[in-house]
Amino acid sequence: MSVKKVVLAYSGGLDTSVIIKWLMDKYNCEVIAYTADLGQNEPLEPIKAKALKTGASKAYVEDLRKEFLEDYVMKAFKMNALYENKYPLATALGRPLITKKLVEIAIKEGADAIAHGSTGKGNDQVRFDVSAVALKPDIKVLVPVRDWELKSREEEIEYAKKFNIEIPITKEKPYSIDRNIWGVAIEAGILEDPEQETPEDIFSLTKNPLEAPDKPQYITIGFEKAIPVSIDGNKMPIVDLVTQLNHIAGSHGIGRIDMIENRLVGIKSREVYEAPAAVSLLEAKRALEQLILDREAMHFKDQLSIKYSELVYYGLWFSPLREALDAFADKLCENLTGEVTIKLYKGSVTAVSRKSPYSIYNKNLATYEASDTFKHKDGEGFCNIWGLPLKVMASIKYSQK
Amino acid sequence: MSVKKVVLAYSGGLDTSVIIKWLMDKYNCEVIAYTADLGQNEPLEPIKAKALKTGASKAYVEDLRKEFLEDYVMKAFKMNALYENKYPLATALGRPLITKKLVEIAIKEGADAIAHGSTGKGNDQVRFDVSAVALKPDIKVLVPVRDWELKSREEEIEYAKKFNIEIPITKEKPYSIDRNIWGVAIEAGILEDPEQETPEDIFSLTKNPLEAPDKPQYITIGFEKAIPVSIDGNKMPIVDLVTQLNHIAGSHGIGRIDMIENRLVGIKSREVYEAPAAVSLLEAKRALEQLILDREAMHFKDQLSIKYSELVYYGLWFSPLREALDAFADKLCENLTGEVTIKLYKGSVTAVSRKSPYSIYNKNLATYEASDTFKHKDGEGFCNIWGLPLKVMASIKYSQK
Amino acid sequence: MSVKKVVLAYSGGLDTSVIIKWLMDKYNCEVIAYTADLGQNEPLEPIKAKALKTGASKAYVEDLRKEFLEDYVMKAFKMNALYENKYPLATALGRPLITKKLVEIAIKEGADAIAHGSTGKGNDQVRFDVSAVALKPDIKVLVPVRDWELKSREEEIEYAKKFNIEIPITKEKPYSIDRNIWGVAIEAGILEDPEQETPEDIFSLTKNPLEAPDKPQYITIGFEKAIPVSIDGNKMPIVDLVTQLNHIAGSHGIGRIDMIENRLVGIKSREVYEAPAAVSLLEAKRALEQLILDREAMHFKDQLSIKYSELVYYGLWFSPLREALDAFADKLCENLTGEVTIKLYKGSVTAVSRKSPYSIYNKNLATYEASDTFKHKDGEGFCNIWGLPLKVMASIKYSQK
Amino acid sequence: MSVKKVVLAYSGGLDTSVIIKWLMDKYNCEVIAYTADLGQNEPLEPIKAKALKTGASKAYVEDLRKEFLEDYVMKAFKMNALYENKYPLATALGRPLITKKLVEIAIKEGADAIAHGSTGKGNDQVRFDVSAVALKPDIKVLVPVRDWELKSREEEIEYAKKFNIEIPITKEKPYSIDRNIWGVAIEAGILEDPEQETPEDIFSLTKNPLEAPDKPQYITIGFEKAIPVSIDGNKMPIVDLVTQLNHIAGSHGIGRIDMIENRLVGIKSREVYEAPAAVSLLEAKRALEQLILDREAMHFKDQLSIKYSELVYYGLWFSPLREALDAFADKLCENLTGEVTIKLYKGSVTAVSRKSPYSIYNKNLATYEASDTFKHKDGEGFCNIWGLPLKVMASIKYSQK
Repeated sequence: MSVKKVVLAYSGGLDTSVIIKWLMDKYNCEVIAYTADLGQNEPLEPIKAKALKTGASKAYVEDLRKEFLEDYVMKAFKMNALYENKYPLATALGRPLITKKLVEIAIKEGADAIAHGSTGKGNDQVRFDVSAVALKPDIKVLVPVRDWELKSREEEIEYAKKFNIEIPITKEKPYSIDRNIWGVAIEAGILEDPEQETPEDIFSLTKNPLEAPDKPQYITIGFEKAIPVSIDGNKMPIVDLVTQLNHIAGSHGIGRIDMIENRLVGIKSREVYEAPAAVSLLEAKRALEQLILDREAMHFKDQLSIKYSELVYYGLWFSPLREALDAFADKLCENLTGEVTIKLYKGSVTAVSRKSPYSIYNKNLATYEASDTFKHKDGEGFCNIWGLPLKVMASIKYSQK
Repeated sequence: MSVKKVVLAYSGGLDTSVIIKWLMDKYNCEVIAYTADLGQNEPLEPIKAKALKTGASKAYVEDLRKEFLEDYVMKAFKMNALYENKYPLATALGRPLITKKLVEIAIKEGADAIAHGSTGKGNDQVRFDVSAVALKPDIKVLVPVRDWELKSREEEIEYAKKFNIEIPITKEKPYSIDRNIWGVAIEAGILEDPEQETPEDIFSLTKNPLEAPDKPQYITIGFEKAIPVSIDGNKMPIVDLVTQLNHIAGSHGIGRIDMIENRLVGIKSREVYEAPAAVSLLEAKRALEQLILDREAMHFKDQLSIKYSELVYYGLWFSPLREALDAFADKLCENLTGEVTIKLYKGSVTAVSRKSPYSIYNKNLATYEASDTFKHKDGEGFCNIWGLPLKVMASIKYSQK
Repeated sequence: MSVKKVVLAYSGGLDTSVIIKWLMDKYNCEVIAYTADLGQNEPLEPIKAKALKTGASKAYVEDLRKEFLEDYVMKAFKMNALYENKYPLATALGRPLITKKLVEIAIKEGADAIAHGSTGKGNDQVRFDVSAVALKPDIKVLVPVRDWELKSREEEIEYAKKFNIEIPITKEKPYSIDRNIWGVAIEAGILEDPEQETPEDIFSLTKNPLEAPDKPQYITIGFEKAIPVSIDGNKMPIVDLVTQLNHIAGSHGIGRIDMIENRLVGIKSREVYEAPAAVSLLEAKRALEQLILDREAMHFKDQLSIKYSELVYYGLWFSPLREALDAFADKLCENLTGEVTIKLYKGSVTAVSRKSPYSIYNKNLATYEASDTFKHKDGEGFCNIWGLPLKVMASIKYSQK
Repeated sequence: MSVKKVVLAYSGGLDTSVIIKWLMDKYNCEVIAYTADLGQNEPLEPIKAKALKTGASKAYVEDLRKEFLEDYVMKAFKMNALYENKYPLATALGRPLITKKLVEIAIKEGADAIAHGSTGKGNDQVRFDVSAVALKPDIKVLVPVRDWELKSREEEIEYAKKFNIEIPITKEKPYSIDRNIWGVAIEAGILEDPEQETPEDIFSLTKNPLEAPDKPQYITIGFEKAIPVSIDGNKMPIVDLVTQLNHIAGSHGIGRIDMIENRLVGIKSREVYEAPAAVSLLEAKRALEQLILDREAMHFKDQLSIKYSELVYYGLWFSPLREALDAFADKLCENLTGEVTIKLYKGSVTAVSRKSPYSIYNKNLATYEASDTFKHKDGEGFCNIWGLPLKVMASIKYSQK
């Protein structure tokens, strides 16, 4: 395969630094580094400098947090997407956006390939690879880690030294961590033993619940058409809201998730996540849905949510089914406007109060007090009809005895 | 309608006490009282005595806790049944069993009717009515509260006084409460305002998380084919296990659920539940499933779980679909044997360690260490094929430009 | 209940004629008759005249065929809605539209009630009743047949004679028939015996396949975004297209459906339908979908289709879930443009040729000829990963032996 | 990779004949040929002889038709499995059984590998590969066509000549055909053009409907627990029943299926099937289900059917989910006993009469005659409750105006 110019998703770590050199070496090609700010909370200018120093012909750095939250995260949020009931999909949602940018820059710069640092056993390779061809079917996608001969970190370091690639002075982190504004994903190291409790030192965004404040904190989230727009009545842009909520809820130890998860590539892995804002917002939004959505809508949405999470997790973001499910969600969320107060306390978040102009909770129908307007007599006709098939079935059994 | 003998589900409260007299009066019939112990934690002999005193010709009292847990609760547990993602269905699971017993006694005693104290706007009427005709299609089901002219508690009390029915000396409870070994359901009173936080005084089974122990407690649940069989290695009967776990987890404030829920009869109501054992056992069992079930099985089971919960909540326990789903669950749970350690702390329960002889988590496949046995090269073929439809679709778009 | 003015869905038959009088008699109210042309193929002016003669203060007649097809039928068509895999929902789709018109006229005329002629054991009462309150929650819905004391056709005729209501001179039809442009529904009479083959005399829209032409006919349907727009290249309005197709396909004996169906009200009934256009268009459209939709979208849409059919059949047309599913379908059908040729022959319709500018069928990928562009080697990686969970599971079993 | 002894799925055609030699050549290994009779209607002894002549050290021939129908086909039949609503999965169901036999013989003969003749772009490779590792995780699966250097049929023939492999004297068939007792699959050749109508010469099991008898034929199928057991009252073994029905229904041109189908490997292909018995039996069984299954069971089963078909088509036969779905189906089919008469006529099969001792169709509930036992009054309570959520929702909208 011949490659002339490649746009690389560049993080500044050992892997992607080695990849710059390796690509230049293997394909005799130009490498453009691309680094996105999805809220990973790192200074990006040094990364840019490093890319150029390591051999990149150009280095892009871009703040994508707003686009990420508005066009990716909030869509999944509308669908309550949680992979295997737990994972809010932070990394999974970031990959298609990064891929989209890589492809756009490839087009702009006349590159014929993109590259990323994923391995052959993870989910991210699928998300990058599939998104790329879904956006530009003739683009080449290079995945050096899947191909190369560097078998271990030691060999990578040797390679780096040989080519004068700056090696991070910090000692090897015992975990693999991916962080963006919607959450942190942690894997590897001691977590590979499912019998081990997660050690405290892996967490960066959440306080240990045991050390969280002894007093619960109440905050009120305002929603407009399912999108969070305010905290305690203060309207703010979504980037600020999520950032602030990560801080508040994180300080109460909220949003830790520990699971054995089924990867798309057929293996199970232990994953630990921190997602204080995501977990808090989902609790609040669900309380709002309970007030506003009718039964048929609510139950059916729960089924679609499973599928939506699969699509995101499986790398099928740029697919017609995802877009159609978004149209469904947009429609169903039209009335999801209101306020929910949540209580944050030592690792738990609980909705305690909810209100909405679109609430179909009707006290006069629900009440057991004198103001009851429900026609109790209707219950009889309903029960008779509801049980009729089982009654007929029982008659058959009886008549056969 | 003529009724000659009726078996009444009798709780000993004002409603069902008045009902004994009302049935005798209206139908000039014999009334047999039936009281089941599902773990509501009340002495039953006084209830029996009261039934007889109030006019019942006979009074049955029966401990159904074992049958309830084994033949009803554990079936739903295998399916992870939670109505609207939250409610473990304690009351909903109890009603079909009570109805079964009412019908059995009706047959034994030659009664032509059963009766229960449900209103016309709740779910329980449906569960009683439908279960009854599903078991004996020609039985009459009497639902006095749906029919009678007593419009308020005051009128009921007057009626009771008139007929010398013993009135509970305790003042009217501000809430409506139903309790069994799988959980407590609380509604009415201040809860009818969805903006109000639940007051502390409604809870009977769980400690306020703020007053729960400052030190987390770890306990290990042993499972055999999805059924919990031991705590910290001590094997015990299911009734003891659930009772003990309600106590332990309840003391950590675990199992409180506060929701606006969609009743089958078309209204929303605010429901608060306490289910310390149920919530803890589900957390543990799900952690076990993560270890043992493959992806296709796990994701699909989640879909069936929604339906199963509906069937139970909607009163369709004695239906072919419920039985077929149980057969599904029995088969899928065959390997769900192992141990999970959960951590209980101030309202939260979290699985922290899990092991099983049937675990399909495979460290050598998952690891990022040198012992990795995954063939990374496979990733490329997989991604190429996985993304092919989207790639072809993109080609069409490109070629049309 | 007091009623002052009521808008009645009036068909001109015995039932609704008696109802005019009965309503006036019972409520001492004004009755406005409303008759919609949904394609039932009857002259409507005589019906109008009869309504006025029978006592209606006003009589509306309206051609709704275009609105019916565009805003109701085509939405269900996009979702391939078939109740219990067979019934194209002609009557079920018509009821909400008629109800909408009744309510609109009620508002315009200042009426406080609407009325319809459905019985208490059919699906139509639900569709009318629910649609009415979903559109105007305070409207009264009168359903005389559910309430009145006329126990049989004989009593109705007597009632009619007493009040000089014109009785149709035709002898009692042995079947109950409802017809609109999307299909005919036939029930009752000999059909009530599920062992009896449907007699030929019940059919009005389709020729007996045994007497249909001995030569197959080929016609080509053009679709734009899933909507049929042309026959054999001739663009035509949807009303013309469906009318013409009913004629053509009907003459080949196509579109007969004979089923035992589950009504919403808990009973099974034998229903026979004729739907030549519906059945032919669905065959054609599905062939188009096969060419254009990717696998995930196609399979998932099939699931949603089941739910959509239930919503329509169950009278929940004016519900948020139906609207959200329409948004889903609109999005997914965006590319469903192309042409399909179907072959009509003695009761069968089969798609034999299909083409589309959005086809993602790719001959070069599919072919077994030399032009094959599929990378066969990818198959290995794909299979290895696809089978990995089952392989690991098998290892466990082996290691335990 | 070293291979010492391999069991090859051998058909006797050019591909697998070349494979015998190629395997011996490449791995210097022993090759055992295995040929299963699944009802492909070919004499097997000559195939055995040919295998031995071509170099196989041993050749097995086995009649698996009974096992195939009982343990594979009938399970899928219980679930009404049709891939993409059309394909009865004949080939897909055969592959896991053949793989099971290959693995069993490998164990018995001490072979370390199995081999099959599938390409890298079809579904069959997945079914073979996945089934093999699901049964014996350490077995090697050799797929020569995916690996070798023979690029075309011409090169294969040259290779065959070089090694004196007998080449079928018939000229190259223009189609690729796979046949077993449950159906025939035809692809390639002119079928690769989706605009072309299927030519008559591809069909072997079904008569052209235009040349089928002018008189319809009625036959009655007896079912016991969903399994067909008799034709016109004559009980017969399943192999005879399906064989006979293929003949009868085939002679009426029934069971032709023409579709563009989504392969698991990401491409669409045009597939034509013949399945006279399968299509006829499904029509009959569905008519029986309509009589016996209640609404909830029927609708939900339709959803599971989609998943079941995917599992079979995707090669996941030996998976826990398939087994659990079988347990579901076994339970639900317990009452599916009865008789259905179908009418066969020029390409169409239609159920015209059905009866069962478990029928829950109840004429007295369904009838519009005087014998009606349905309580019409119940309809009102039912409708009121059914429409309540939409009514409340409408109230909100009204109150906001």
